This record gives sequence, C-alpha cells and structure tokens, in this order.
Amino acid sequence: MVESVKRAVRIIKELTGASPRLGVTELADRVGVSKSAMHGLLRTLESDGLVVQDQESGKYRLGPALVTFGNAYLDTHELRTRALTWSNLLATRTDEAVWVGVLVHDDVLVIHHVCRPGNVAQPLETGATLPWNTTALGKAIVAFSPEELRTSLLSRPPAALTGHSVTEPEVLEAQLAQAREVGYAVEKQEATLGDAGIAAPIFDRTGCAAGAIGLVGPVERLLDERHRQGCSIATRETARSLSRELGAHRFGNRIASF
Amino acid sequence: MVESVKRAVRIIKELTGASPRLGVTELADRVGVSKSAMHGLLRTLESDGLVVQDQESGKYRLGPALVTFGNAYLDTHELRTRALTWSNLLATRTDEAVWVGVLVHDDVLVIHHVCRPGNVAQPLETGATLPWNTTALGKAIVAFSPEELRTSLLSRPPAALTGHSVTEPEVLEAQLAQAREVGYAVEKQEATLGDAGIAAPIFDRTGCAAGAIGLVGPVERLLDERHRQGCSIATRETARSLSRELGAHRFGNRIASF
Repeated sequence: MVESVKRAVRIIKELTGASPRLGVTELADRVGVSKSAMHGLLRTLESDGLVVQDQESGKYRLGPALVTFGNAYLDTHELRTRALTWSNLLATRTDEAVWVGVLVHDDVLVIHHVCRPGNVAQPLETGATLPWNTTALGKAIVAFSPEELRTSLLSRPPAALTGHSVTEPEVLEAQLAQAREVGYAVEKQEATLGDAGIAAPIFDRTGCAAGAIGLVGPVERLLDERHRQGCSIATRETARSLSRELGAHRFGNRIASF
Repeated sequence: MVESVKRAVRIIKELTGASPRLGVTELADRVGVSKSAMHGLLRTLESDGLVVQDQESGKYRLGPALVTFGNAYLDTHELRTRALTWSNLLATRTDEAVWVGVLVHDDVLVIHHVCRPGNVAQPLETGATLPWNTTALGKAIVAFSPEELRTSLLSRPPAALTGHSVTEPEVLEAQLAQAREVGYAVEKQEATLGDAGIAAPIFDRTGCAAGAIGLVGPVERLLDERHRQGCSIATRETARSLSRELGAHRFGNRIASF
C-alpha cells in the first residue's frame, strides 16, 4: 500500500460524507496527518480537479474531475454499453423505468437508468448504491452467483432501508431460491416506500451473473397481476438477449450448477 | 505536490483514455515508474475500488468507486441541487430536453440532464464535457463572466466538434456580446450535427455566472421562430428564478459591469 495515496483517497471519502465542505485543519484531523502534509495532498488533488477550494470560505469540496472519471468508468463498462439499446427497448415495451446494476461488495451499483417513457420528473439513479438485499437487481444477481458468494453475503446482517426490507437470512434465501425457479427476482417497497422492482440476471461468457436488468415503479402498478406478468416476461427475455450479446451460452448449465 | 498521488491520478487518467484496459507493464511504462512501484500503486487503488483487475486478462480498468465519488460531487453541488426542480419545470414548459452546466477550464461540464418529456431513447449527458464555445451553456456562462476570463478563453484557439463549430475569436466575441444583449446564448449544430441549443446564465450571490441552464433539441424544431421565442423566454425566466434561489440580487448591476 502507498500511504499517501491511501490518504488522498481518504480525503475524497471524507468529502463525500455528511460534511461536503471541510477546511485544512478539519481534514488534517480526520485523516490524521499534519496541517502541512494535508496542504501538500490538497494541492496535488486540486491540480487535477479532484478537489476544489471554495473562494469565499477557503474550504475544500469535491472536484469536477470525479464526474469525468465516473463517466469514463460507465462508458468503458462493457455490460453497460451493451445494455443501452436493450434497456430503451425494455422501457418502451413495459412503459416502466429501467435500471441496470452490478454487484459491488454488499451493494448494487446502478450503472444505467432509463426514465419511464413520458415521466419527466424522475431523479436519475445512475451512480446510486443500494444494499443488494433491498433491490430486485441485487437479488437477481446473488440468486445466480456461486454459492460461496451467496453464503458470505447472507452471513453478514443485511441492511434495511424501509420497514419492508427483508433482513432475515432464511427469508432471503427462500426468495433467492424462488428467483432461480422463475428466472427473475422481485422486491416490494424494500428500498423505497411505494416502489417495487422486477429484475433478471445477465450472464457473461464465463457463465457468471455479471449484473442484472430490471424495472422499478409504483408497487400498485408494477405488481398488478396482469402487468406484472408482462413485465417479468419482458425483463427475462431482455436479460437473456443481453446475455447472449455478452457471449453467454444459449442453453447454459449455469442454472443446474447452483 | 505529492509525487505518488500524482502518479495514482495519472493511472486513472490513462485508463479513461483510448485503452480502458491496461496491464501492469503497460501502465508502468506510461506513468514512468518501475513495475514493482506500479504494483504498489495499483494494489492501493484497488483496495478502495478505484481500479479493478479483470479476472480473465489480469489487466486493470477503472473501478466502481469513481462513479460513487462522481455522484457525490453532483449531489453536493449547490447549483445542481437547486436546479433539479427548475429544470423539470423548464422541460415540461418547453417540451424540450434540459441541460445544466458549469465551466471547468475550457469546457462545459454537464451536471444535470432532463430528458425531453416522452422521448425515451436519449443518452444521458450528465458528466459529459464539451468545449465551451460549442455549447449554448458555455457561451451563456462566458458572456457573463469577468472580462479577464473571457479574454483568456478567447486567446486560446477554441476547439471544433462539427463543421459548424465557431472558432474565430471575433465571431465568438460578437456572439457573446449578442448574448449579453438578449440575456441568452444560442448554438446551431456546433456540438452535434442536427442539434441546437439555447441557454441563459445562472448567477450566484457574488454576482458571477456560476453556470447556465438551457435547452437542447433538433435545430429545425428548437430554432423554429415561434417555438424559439417561447423557449428563450422560458429559459431566461428559469435562469433568473434559479439565480434568485442561489442568492443573486434581483436587479443586479452585473450586466452593466461587463
């Protein structure tokens, strides 16, 4: 490990937290270095646009280069690039918002979001991270992941975002088994009150679940029996087409192997 | 400057470029350090999710933490937070896509994008950077920036993205003067063939142009005389409301001072 790089990342993490504007002394305290060392680190980060100094207050906040780098991550992500057209088609077909996500440690990172056709006032969720167990995307990925990963995720107490979030390992395990049975996962108000999700796993050429694609919408509409059926079929078919594009086998033994 | 931090940022920059997957040796060559030093840097960046190693090829690519950090920049950006509701209103009022941007060096960074109501197949431009002179947002900001900044930007040869991009400093200067006259700036196929833009500056409590808000759409529709008039009025009014929220004076002498 390179200590000064570790510290530089720590500065950025501190600024992503509850106090997005911090002075040199505050940052030096939090990172545990001298004020002069902190000055050097900040100057270096500032020279590349990773932090900026506020003219008025003299405090530091996150810099615009982070957005550029974050965008580059998304633009070079193969699954996301391939998902662009498919998710537009899925949104049009189901008339619902589409999310594409990957698993990062215990969270789902939303790497693509297509607004529901005709709905303008939707906050964009690209870049959001949510506990895997609170999203249909997360359940779809974990259900089709190797047992080792599944067991390790279930062994840590899963996070709750609403009173509906499922945190009992046994209940989650049953939901994952159910997802393996039908080929898609469901979430009911477990991340956001009033919203539900349906998602199916995307496989890559190695046969692993590389991510998931799914729908998010009001629980009453999305899980209305008739609409739900059409939505789950469309989601599963889209995930399958996308998997093929990523090089997955048409008829894998991946399901059988879990 | 802290040399190892500088190098770590250099690694990330290399991976945002034309080769999003690079091995240790390639990275060591490009950054100009030994292979073992590169190993240490990569391990450190990997431990925080800033880079990830591809299982199959052993090469490195950008990591998911960059998206989280980029998102944190956007979420903590005061102008963007305040612009969320206003840009939805502007999109609904004009039936066009809305962009909000800030100036970063010679570029406009798009920090918010609202899809055109009813149009599903739009790539999201949040996080994109474009040469300031090719966008209405950039022209709106620069037109209302201090003369010193304006002169320095015009002294560097502006970039061209299409055959319509304006690069002659005199023509740009005339366009900026025109923008100061009417309170909004226009761009015609200067960033993307077929698209036009209309944008107005957003002022903060210091009276500086902190950013701009505007519309982007097909040149035939957006600049159709009747629609254009409604669009430019709506854009200017929205920018004014947003400026008030950011603490700008109602009747500033800011225009007079340029």
